[in-house]
Amino acid sequence: MFEYYYSKPMSFIKSYVFLGILIFVSCKQSPQLTKPINFIVIFADDLGYGDLSSFGHPTIKTPNLDRMATEGQKWTNFYAGASVCTPSRAALLTGRLPIRSGMSSNKHRVLFTDSHNGLPIEEITLAEQLKKANYTTACIGKWHLGHKKAYLPLQHGFDYYFGIPYSNDMDVPEAVLKEKGGYWNVLRDPKNNLIKNFQVPLIKNNEIIERPADQNNITRRYSEETIKFIKKNKNKPFFIYLAHNLPHVPLFASKEALGKSSRGLYGDVVEEIDHGVGKILNTLKEEGLDKNTLVVFTSDNGPWTAYNEQGGSAGLLRAGKGTTWEGGMREPTIFWAPERISPGIIDKMGSTMDIFNTFSNIAGVSLPEDRILDSYDLSPLLFENKNTERDHLFYYRGTNLYAIRLGDFKAHYVTQGEYGQFGEKEIHNPPLLYNLNQDPSEQYNIAVQHPDILQAMKNLVMAHQEKMIPGEDQLKNRGGE
Amino acid sequence: MFEYYYSKPMSFIKSYVFLGILIFVSCKQSPQLTKPINFIVIFADDLGYGDLSSFGHPTIKTPNLDRMATEGQKWTNFYAGASVCTPSRAALLTGRLPIRSGMSSNKHRVLFTDSHNGLPIEEITLAEQLKKANYTTACIGKWHLGHKKAYLPLQHGFDYYFGIPYSNDMDVPEAVLKEKGGYWNVLRDPKNNLIKNFQVPLIKNNEIIERPADQNNITRRYSEETIKFIKKNKNKPFFIYLAHNLPHVPLFASKEALGKSSRGLYGDVVEEIDHGVGKILNTLKEEGLDKNTLVVFTSDNGPWTAYNEQGGSAGLLRAGKGTTWEGGMREPTIFWAPERISPGIIDKMGSTMDIFNTFSNIAGVSLPEDRILDSYDLSPLLFENKNTERDHLFYYRGTNLYAIRLGDFKAHYVTQGEYGQFGEKEIHNPPLLYNLNQDPSEQYNIAVQHPDILQAMKNLVMAHQEKMIPGEDQLKNRGGE
Repeated sequence: MFEYYYSKPMSFIKSYVFLGILIFVSCKQSPQLTKPINFIVIFADDLGYGDLSSFGHPTIKTPNLDRMATEGQKWTNFYAGASVCTPSRAALLTGRLPIRSGMSSNKHRVLFTDSHNGLPIEEITLAEQLKKANYTTACIGKWHLGHKKAYLPLQHGFDYYFGIPYSNDMDVPEAVLKEKGGYWNVLRDPKNNLIKNFQVPLIKNNEIIERPADQNNITRRYSEETIKFIKKNKNKPFFIYLAHNLPHVPLFASKEALGKSSRGLYGDVVEEIDHGVGKILNTLKEEGLDKNTLVVFTSDNGPWTAYNEQGGSAGLLRAGKGTTWEGGMREPTIFWAPERISPGIIDKMGSTMDIFNTFSNIAGVSLPEDRILDSYDLSPLLFENKNTERDHLFYYRGTNLYAIRLGDFKAHYVTQGEYGQFGEKEIHNPPLLYNLNQDPSEQYNIAVQHPDILQAMKNLVMAHQEKMIPGEDQLKNRGGE
Repeated sequence: MFEYYYSKPMSFIKSYVFLGILIFVSCKQSPQLTKPINFIVIFADDLGYGDLSSFGHPTIKTPNLDRMATEGQKWTNFYAGASVCTPSRAALLTGRLPIRSGMSSNKHRVLFTDSHNGLPIEEITLAEQLKKANYTTACIGKWHLGHKKAYLPLQHGFDYYFGIPYSNDMDVPEAVLKEKGGYWNVLRDPKNNLIKNFQVPLIKNNEIIERPADQNNITRRYSEETIKFIKKNKNKPFFIYLAHNLPHVPLFASKEALGKSSRGLYGDVVEEIDHGVGKILNTLKEEGLDKNTLVVFTSDNGPWTAYNEQGGSAGLLRAGKGTTWEGGMREPTIFWAPERISPGIIDKMGSTMDIFNTFSNIAGVSLPEDRILDSYDLSPLLFENKNTERDHLFYYRGTNLYAIRLGDFKAHYVTQGEYGQFGEKEIHNPPLLYNLNQDPSEQYNIAVQHPDILQAMKNLVMAHQEKMIPGEDQLKNRGGE
């Protein structure tokens, strides 16, 4: 009676022979909506798969996101483009694997305060793409794609920027580092999360307006800036990229949120983001924009569990931030557009990279033809209950391909922990193989039973790597200032 | 700014000095509802905390239970009375720790097909309790509190019984055991889940009506029996205890459910239970009983992960069935009574043992005064958004106390894995201490920081153990037939 267990993969493999042909072909489906639609992407930082109540957290309460999930689509197999900040953000904004733009590096995993470079100006961002259809664009929050003026959001298609240009744990003064005995100790000591220990700047457009940024109110201020921007631009089509700096450590919450969550400070922070989401959705309703705005909520990578209770939870997924296990890259994701999106739980694959094609196609902007995109239009699934063309996903660490997902199955060629957790680097030959739909926690290696699937994956990887031209490493140049 | 992290426990400890006095005093709050209300308890078997979509599973779809959770209360800190079948069921039906009734034993963890005894007739079950208020009562499904006639549901206050009297993996013929090389191999081999390998009887009232029970349709038949009973008894107050045999291994699903879930067979099974829940709730609506029926959904213990993909998931909780880690005893729980229960997510503590006092008080039946109950009335939290008196919880394995929860905190005096998983037996002195609200996965031992909490727990344990009179072991007599 278990035969159907094993019959599925066989027929499904056949379909991949055909799908393999389509792999790098970007889809140019005609837009689903005739009126211009506004876009808001709300991007959390280091929020784990299990950190919303609707994704299973017992004590973090996120009623606004939960309602958004009920009214819209809750995506349970949606991925960030990388397992750490900088490459993940590059992936979202370019619709491309970050190795292509040089924003994924083996030497340094992210940009630091002494990094010289950023997202190359030749890259086409989602903001630039939407500007072709006369969208007004704003980036509010964390950037982390280059903090020098040449790389800031205004130079990448955004009309407005308000935010901290990198992670909120950066710019620790030398004196503090010495006193505490290094960066990790500063962060790990919960009693030392004082704003002055993190001299991060707050930037408006191209200018620093506050330093250190008052992080106690930063989440609230980002939500308020978003609301202001909506009200100001309600008569034009707009795109807002709201990238919260939190719940990345160090954690900060406003007076109004502090001590509210039984999860502790981490919960206060997530619940304050949720509160902002509620206010943003209410603003859309009040301004009559809710029927004409698509809001996406997701996170840049998995939880930073090395910080104990200050880090989040990947729920039932294995490992967390920095790894190519599911906990590192699968994110709690919600698409919301009342009366447009058919509500439901979607367990098909999606990626933050797909936002590029999806929004472009909805806005009626043609896709760039001079470069390889790794983006698939999700509109069929959002609006028509049809499958999308995304059937595979590549998991990179730096410039190395560590794993691939094909349909229900994931093969790990290499596994490696990070931040002192989740094990040493291991090369697997044969690869580890998991059925992610049946074994979401990646516990039961079934490589021996499925040589055919491993072969199909290998073919896919070879075709992928044959055409891969890595961009020049943008993260390597540091220091000297 | 983290001070509130540490100030909470101090003030909270004081309140336990007072609460300590109340510990064994059963609460006799007057009933909240004036009209007689019907009760249905839907009890799953080995369903893990993370196995419903509303509790975070990515690929198991449980729209009916999710709707029930949205319309009612989703309890995220609700516990079974034990980590394995027999004692857990005794706890639910008696409102008492199973050690008191002798249904929790160190020699055998559950009753087997060659066990002689069962739940002592002197125990007062919830069915007997509700019969005092003229309820009509039914037990539909798994019993596992003694399969000899003297112990069957009809001898314990139920007017009707329809079900398999123990686990669905029992009664494996000798020939099958020999052929496969033992019980574990029979179960672990997914291709051998044929009904004839499990010669379990199906009983109606006191008589066997089918053997082996056709397990392919068992879930569906249990739901249908429940619906029949509702329709037949709609004019009297009724109590239905619907205890599904599944998703305990071996897994079976009906033709209609088979192959439907992307989670595989385990998902098919859970989705079939969910489907039944939907039909039961619809029946209540159609019969005009939905405003007058309280439905509780929960599970008997954590997932049996030793069976790989055939076992469930505890979500973000640690370990599973058989252990006193959270994954062994915390269950996905929903209370539903439209227009009576204030909807929401409840992260306060509750236990299946509390159902005894809660239903008794709602039905206006006074509590037995000749015995110690471990049950607390949950009505204040169900109907009035007030706190209940449950502030602590004891985690037993057999007759040994392994852990205690007091408020947000849990101390492990002993930890021990089961079924070859989750580690050897370890005695902890000082105990391991976790803040379950802030660290639901029991990862960060904070014993050193909280000697005061450990002391308060120790006092509570001593008071508890001083009054503990274990019942005579009912599980030890086996064989000889």
